[in-house]
Amino acid sequence: MKFNLESLKFDENGLIPVIIQDEKNLEVLMMAYMNLDSLRETLKDGKTSFWSRSRKKYWLKGETSGHFQHVKSVFYDCDKDTLLIKVEQIGGACHDGYRSCFYTELKGDETRVLGEKVFDPEKKYK
Amino acid sequence: MKFNLESLKFDENGLIPVIIQDEKNLEVLMMAYMNLDSLRETLKDGKTSFWSRSRKKYWLKGETSGHFQHVKSVFYDCDKDTLLIKVEQIGGACHDGYRSCFYTELKGDETRVLGEKVFDPEKKYK
Repeated sequence: MKFNLESLKFDENGLIPVIIQDEKNLEVLMMAYMNLDSLRETLKDGKTSFWSRSRKKYWLKGETSGHFQHVKSVFYDCDKDTLLIKVEQIGGACHDGYRSCFYTELKGDETRVLGEKVFDPEKKYK
Repeated sequence: MKFNLESLKFDENGLIPVIIQDEKNLEVLMMAYMNLDSLRETLKDGKTSFWSRSRKKYWLKGETSGHFQHVKSVFYDCDKDTLLIKVEQIGGACHDGYRSCFYTELKGDETRVLGEKVFDPEKKYK
């Protein structure tokens, strides 16, 4: 069935949330937002591009850090308002130096950091 | 470190997106939204509760279908604006009858349905 990207449900700001998952170990790496243009660019380029809500600009993941995400497969959900993209993650997805942005577990009212840093964010982004 | 749930970043509607992942096979099952009250209820009850944006009400996942999600672990991301909850999913997460809401793959401009239905939604919700 031919699929029209415009049939996806972008929110009132023209954005759709995108869950990024490691295609190999299935770890959820991050969530970010795309607009129609960054989704088209992602599908064309084979690397993820997002719309930064805080900086209000396009953002090719890995442009500064070299930590690109190579797209392996793309899924949308039953409501057509969320995407799931499985990627090959170079380095780490998280700007704090971890492989996944979800490196903090909430247990009761305590938290604990899980996982090791895979790079030094101060060196990477200075 | 003691953690205050109110330090999470809820959006302008008081909501935070929550990725639900199968704790065993690590399949991403769905994404939905919680407000502070439904998050507190989820942590207290051990089963996921969400805020339905379309129906504007609380929603104990599985209340109608019996397809509860038993919480196994809870993570928040580096920006504190997204949650990841690993669950034991009873039945299927998707109201269309699939285990995961992300049952449609987008490949080029074609789509294909992956996965088998685990229940008949017409029987379950009639």
